Amino acid sequence: SPLKEVLFFPTALTCVEHFFKPDTTFASPCPCPLPHGLETSLTGLLRHLLSASVSLDLCIFAFSSQDLSRAVLLLQSRGVAVRVVTDKDYMRISGSQIGTLRNAGICVRHEMGSVYMHHKFAVIDGRRLITGSLNWTLAAIQSNKENILVTEEPDLVLPFTREFQLLWDSNDPA
Amino acid sequence: SPLKEVLFFPTALTCVEHFFKPDTTFASPCPCPLPHGLETSLTGLLRHLLSASVSLDLCIFAFSSQDLSRAVLLLQSRGVAVRVVTDKDYMRISGSQIGTLRNAGICVRHEMGSVYMHHKFAVIDGRRLITGSLNWTLAAIQSNKENILVTEEPDLVLPFTREFQLLWDSNDPA
Ligand SMILES: [Zn+2]
Ligand SMILES: [Zn+2]
Repeated sequence: SPLKEVLFFPTALTCVEHFFKPDTTFASPCPCPLPHGLETSLTGLLRHLLSASVSLDLCIFAFSSQDLSRAVLLLQSRGVAVRVVTDKDYMRISGSQIGTLRNAGICVRHEMGSVYMHHKFAVIDGRRLITGSLNWTLAAIQSNKENILVTEEPDLVLPFTREFQLLWDSNDPA
Repeated sequence: SPLKEVLFFPTALTCVEHFFKPDTTFASPCPCPLPHGLETSLTGLLRHLLSASVSLDLCIFAFSSQDLSRAVLLLQSRGVAVRVVTDKDYMRISGSQIGTLRNAGICVRHEMGSVYMHHKFAVIDGRRLITGSLNWTLAAIQSNKENILVTEEPDLVLPFTREFQLLWDSNDPA
């Protein structure tokens, strides 16, 4: 049966360097002071994200997590088609990664109305949905009580792919 | 296969009086100026909520919607066991319904740590999950871009029932 998984936050802070430098794992053990080799809700989220091989459609209210930003940039560098819809006020929060993504050539659109674009979901390769309460911020990951749900149930994924396309089209700045 | 449904917000404002006074629908048509007889994401949410016959476990960051408060109070009056976990800062927002629920005898606990209790989920009768980005506020319902996902998939519901119990137990003021 299709993937169905729930991850809760906050999570302990552990090293996630192996996601970004997989080839050097054996050559030179990571010197950072964080715990290594542990599975957390953040490593679970990163693993789902980095499973993308074709596309990532991300609809996120607040995005300031450097780990998650690195993952999105890595996907972009691998040729994955990345599209981001975000909130026009929260894209300017302290440490926002939206500028970094744009500087890397990623297409970002923001809600153009006067309302909050409060979604926090991602669709990977058009078939894996990540959705929940979690904004992509360090406070959300490491401090708050949060959840994400990950599924490939078509009845749950398809409405979100349609919603993403609606938001993408309706916030075209051109 | 188990219930799987996604509802998006914002939604148009329509009359929801029939949920609260079902018996008088035919005797005296509602005189309010809102559109009547329409299905919206809010009526969908109210219908799921009011399907509760045994228990409602609600874990909600911000709760100021009068319509949703009336629904919770109606469940309480029907003998449904209602438990609420909320955020200690946001329980004091303008128009918060938490005081109203407590005054009606509903058990409310709030996050006792210094972090945000940012979940927005409900479990109905231990088997139907409502979760998503939607806080139970008028702005979320009528203005923001929001989602809720409703499912009876056990693999998705059970983690949330466990999370609720963990939060309930860990925030016992006694
Ligand atoms: Zn390390
Ligand atoms: Zn009416």
